[in-house]
Amino acid sequence: MKRRAFARSTALGALASTVAAPAFAQSSPAVNWRLVSSFPKTLTISYDACVGFVKRVAELTEGRFQIKLFGPGEIVPAFQVLDAVQNGTVEAGFTASYFYVGKDPTFGFATALPFGLNTRQQNAWMLRGDGLRLNNEFFRAYNVSYVPMGLTGAQMGGWFRKEIKSREDLKGLKMRIGGLAGEIMSRLGVIPQSIPAGDVYPSLERGSIDAVEYVGPFDDEQLGLHRVAKYYYYPGWWEGSVQVGNFVGLEKWNALPPLYRAAFVAAATEAQDLILAGYDALNGAALRRLVAKGTELRPFPREVMVQAYEVAFAYYDELAAKNDKFKTIYDNWKAFGADVLPWYQLAEGTYDNFVYAEYSKRNR
Amino acid sequence: MKRRAFARSTALGALASTVAAPAFAQSSPAVNWRLVSSFPKTLTISYDACVGFVKRVAELTEGRFQIKLFGPGEIVPAFQVLDAVQNGTVEAGFTASYFYVGKDPTFGFATALPFGLNTRQQNAWMLRGDGLRLNNEFFRAYNVSYVPMGLTGAQMGGWFRKEIKSREDLKGLKMRIGGLAGEIMSRLGVIPQSIPAGDVYPSLERGSIDAVEYVGPFDDEQLGLHRVAKYYYYPGWWEGSVQVGNFVGLEKWNALPPLYRAAFVAAATEAQDLILAGYDALNGAALRRLVAKGTELRPFPREVMVQAYEVAFAYYDELAAKNDKFKTIYDNWKAFGADVLPWYQLAEGTYDNFVYAEYSKRNR
Repeated sequence: MKRRAFARSTALGALASTVAAPAFAQSSPAVNWRLVSSFPKTLTISYDACVGFVKRVAELTEGRFQIKLFGPGEIVPAFQVLDAVQNGTVEAGFTASYFYVGKDPTFGFATALPFGLNTRQQNAWMLRGDGLRLNNEFFRAYNVSYVPMGLTGAQMGGWFRKEIKSREDLKGLKMRIGGLAGEIMSRLGVIPQSIPAGDVYPSLERGSIDAVEYVGPFDDEQLGLHRVAKYYYYPGWWEGSVQVGNFVGLEKWNALPPLYRAAFVAAATEAQDLILAGYDALNGAALRRLVAKGTELRPFPREVMVQAYEVAFAYYDELAAKNDKFKTIYDNWKAFGADVLPWYQLAEGTYDNFVYAEYSKRNR
Repeated sequence: MKRRAFARSTALGALASTVAAPAFAQSSPAVNWRLVSSFPKTLTISYDACVGFVKRVAELTEGRFQIKLFGPGEIVPAFQVLDAVQNGTVEAGFTASYFYVGKDPTFGFATALPFGLNTRQQNAWMLRGDGLRLNNEFFRAYNVSYVPMGLTGAQMGGWFRKEIKSREDLKGLKMRIGGLAGEIMSRLGVIPQSIPAGDVYPSLERGSIDAVEYVGPFDDEQLGLHRVAKYYYYPGWWEGSVQVGNFVGLEKWNALPPLYRAAFVAAATEAQDLILAGYDALNGAALRRLVAKGTELRPFPREVMVQAYEVAFAYYDELAAKNDKFKTIYDNWKAFGADVLPWYQLAEGTYDNFVYAEYSKRNR
């Protein structure tokens, strides 16, 4: 008889004194996993939450399920985390699925698509819509399951050495930007560059690139990007929300005792909450510090954004026409957006816009 | 030697086979709690998440920590949940702290203040600002600790039998609205009414009240309010976000084994996530159904909202001048809002407003 079933059946009885040690041993094995992170320690909000996550899993399993965390490059490079989980080198990886759109553009949906769902809409689609289920069905072909563990909120549009006043200014611009956003930018005339986080600062400093997108004020300040580019653009229309998470080897996941799976998911939910709250609490002050140091904020010209929007959805339609997996999730994602967008704008949008207008009227 | 410390110290060793049954019994007592909810079963999103919460706590503690859930009226009435926890009738209560502003207006901050923080800002203040710590310091005088467990997003402004075209139309209006919002409305000429959820529909039907605020499209539709009032106003400026949670008897909380506290908090975080995702996923379709049934949407006139905003902050300043507890949290809350508002508007606001404008241009 398994211990958990036993515990349930006795419910309110004198459980502790009647539990037999052998039964306990049977369903409570010591499990040791390795978790590789795509995100370096310098991305403190996400990395620290991941450190907290592995501690919490151990705590919730009374030390029986131990996960050891490794940074990028310690076992595999940042962008090979999925491969390492897929081929069993490690049990789990903390990463962003959209790093892997080179394998299939369908990897975009679990993280962000340009002009896609915002933070709360994305999480609602994953949890209460078909998002998590459909993404996991897609991920199955890669031998992994997925547990969301973080949201950054809307990111910034990145750092530019020169102002962007019209679409003309994008022509020939060398910008560090990847994935689906890179393709959209390239259709607008940008020459997208793939540059690891560690090379971003020197590349921009010596002018071998003209612009870079990274995260938002708090992370960007730590990287020092304000020292090598003057103009900081908003919004990050290709990352209205970024959701990150853990890929877990499918067989490893299915073999976990139910308690360990529950602990993993619960602790990941707590980490996600902490990551979003971290960005929401810390970006504001970081943005003020950047402006105080001379950074100039610029909105993308509306003309540029409208063209990018049109290019983006034309691109998604192209992808859907030739990729069934992409189409399945795209149709569902788009329908969910249409379902929630008008409500979100009516309630949240009206409230936020009013409160901000009144606040700024009184605090100039 | 306590079992958890033992489990930690053996870390990767052959834990299971060496655990002694008596040690296990010592720190893993069977604990049985009663949890009373202020929210009835008909508020399905919140109530169902609470049902899931108690199941998850049991799962994470392998059945050792059992919480039995009771609806409003089963042990105590909906608005006496705090009292029942405070005096030890039950161990815990799922409620909204702002139901208790009659005891002290400081109870407003853990839930919502008119024109206050939006959903993500509130959660960020609680988790990454001083919100949870300061609220718990205040709650200590009531012999309770607090664990957040739910966010509704921005609510609607409620149902009105006649249109509100100017502040004049609020004069003498009998409206079901409570707490700090009721006081602000009363300063605008409204006659606030305190009416339990069960009497809302008949009161509005027979015209003994003129207007009612409840929650949002999904919950309001279930109550059938569209059948007895035509005009549905937005936004719910007194509830830009509503956070609910569990009050727990302080001694009971402190006496829990650390594992049980961890399980309680982790499961509450999951429930909170599910509640917010539920409202975010379901309100949109409910709003469309209401409009299809004849409900007419109306924005509050800007003039009315601006006056309400001024009245609200003047009222908070009055309260702060005579209530030190209120002042302590108010100052912190206001400073946090000032810290995050401009960033939120720049990033989220610009993104949301753009995406919605482009979406609606193409989907009229």
